[in-house]
Amino acid sequence: MININEHSITQAVLQRLDNCDNPRLKTVMTSLVKHLHEFAREVQLSEEEWMAGIQFLTATGHKCDDKRQEFILLSDTLGLSMLTVAMLNAKPAGATEATVFGPFHIEHPPEYAGVCDITDGASGEPLFVSARVLNTRGEPVAGARVNVWQADADGLYDVQRPGLQKHQACGIVHTDDHGRLGFQTVLPVSYPVPTDGPVGEMLLATGRHPWRPAHVHFKIDAPGYQSLITHVFRDDDEYLQSDVAFGVRSSLLGKYLRHEAGEAPDGHHMDRPFYMLSYDFVLAPAVAA
Amino acid sequence: MININEHSITQAVLQRLDNCDNPRLKTVMTSLVKHLHEFAREVQLSEEEWMAGIQFLTATGHKCDDKRQEFILLSDTLGLSMLTVAMLNAKPAGATEATVFGPFHIEHPPEYAGVCDITDGASGEPLFVSARVLNTRGEPVAGARVNVWQADADGLYDVQRPGLQKHQACGIVHTDDHGRLGFQTVLPVSYPVPTDGPVGEMLLATGRHPWRPAHVHFKIDAPGYQSLITHVFRDDDEYLQSDVAFGVRSSLLGKYLRHEAGEAPDGHHMDRPFYMLSYDFVLAPAVAA
Repeated sequence: MININEHSITQAVLQRLDNCDNPRLKTVMTSLVKHLHEFAREVQLSEEEWMAGIQFLTATGHKCDDKRQEFILLSDTLGLSMLTVAMLNAKPAGATEATVFGPFHIEHPPEYAGVCDITDGASGEPLFVSARVLNTRGEPVAGARVNVWQADADGLYDVQRPGLQKHQACGIVHTDDHGRLGFQTVLPVSYPVPTDGPVGEMLLATGRHPWRPAHVHFKIDAPGYQSLITHVFRDDDEYLQSDVAFGVRSSLLGKYLRHEAGEAPDGHHMDRPFYMLSYDFVLAPAVAA
Repeated sequence: MININEHSITQAVLQRLDNCDNPRLKTVMTSLVKHLHEFAREVQLSEEEWMAGIQFLTATGHKCDDKRQEFILLSDTLGLSMLTVAMLNAKPAGATEATVFGPFHIEHPPEYAGVCDITDGASGEPLFVSARVLNTRGEPVAGARVNVWQADADGLYDVQRPGLQKHQACGIVHTDDHGRLGFQTVLPVSYPVPTDGPVGEMLLATGRHPWRPAHVHFKIDAPGYQSLITHVFRDDDEYLQSDVAFGVRSSLLGKYLRHEAGEAPDGHHMDRPFYMLSYDFVLAPAVAA
């Protein structure tokens, strides 16, 4: 087909998918091409704007490395991440809601056994987390693998600190026979997502703030249950209503309670004030494939 | 706003643009977010597919460097480039049509004066191009700056040859007082776009061939006229109907005529067969800003 014009081109591209032998890929690509073209037609995208888009995507790709995922950040700030989570993660009644994965998860954090301290030098006020992992019948889930990660008192994840040779305030902990887990870490604070890249430029250019309300990330896996990717937010944070990643659920607000110096939950004496968080996670049963 | 669901999230993201003080950016971002979300809803994008998309875009960005533009290739193969060109490049009657820019243009090619030979070692059968640059009244455009680039007999642009320390079969030539230009180069052949990156994977997975019909690129600039970015295709190419970049216009088909050994247009004696292309480009007048 030659002499394709602005109206006939969409059908011309879709016809090229005729030989695609993966039905799902064909469905996804068909919808992608239609919406991409409709966007360009709707705004009458100019060649200069097209080139600005090419350069934006290229810069976003170049900002990605093994510690930074600018495309996830872009997806988070455009609401695509939360949309994807919300669509297909409708949990059964009583199960803990999911939220965005975020760009700072690492593949191989340190593993801890029993009640532990994952701080490892991270800055911040001490926080003791006591949690339970249950199923929707209220029964404890023993041996769940609980991946924890968070920002420190400076609002930085460990992967954002150049030259840091170890992990801080992140790790894998496990539930005991009663579904319990306990660890010491630092109090999370609200923080701006990185603004030194293309996504930061986009937020600035569109008049948006870059802040996320304070939270600790949890990814919980246990045989027989759906993987749960979620956060527990501080319920007193000023950015709960305007999370740049659109990830806040009221069911995920936790009380981070301040205590004066004294005996900590792990029996140690704390000579400075500390915080405590208690939270119960409820896993949904695995869905038959 | 908290507890955003799959239906309310689009409006929630659009509200964040309320403080955008660039009306055009706000328009573009509003349409982009709507179509991005509608795509995800329409296909019920799964988290695994979302992650595959993140990884695809990241790999596409990592494939881009100063000699390769994988995002332009992606745009070309999804028809977005030709759509953008077609929408806002409607030329006045008689003016030469535009087509896609492509991913292989270089910023600073060699400059040539007068009738010249831009081959510089490129492989291929000799081609003599004789062209005129005119305006829509049929008058010659003197001193036009004509940027030429193309693939060689192996189907490769010079920037695709690792280690090549010079440019081949590309350069800037100029029209004389009669609007004429002439240069020797090599006969272009049809070629597959690079398939060693994410775009190649996409083409393979969707059952598409990666071929472009043979062509020479021209970018023509002259004061008082719209910049023209176009190709002249070989009118006998087998891929004219199925150009992977959707760029073929019937008005851009040229006759690349074969001649036996003998006198060439530049007066030299050629001891092997050669090709000749004659083509008239017609520039549209500049549009008042």
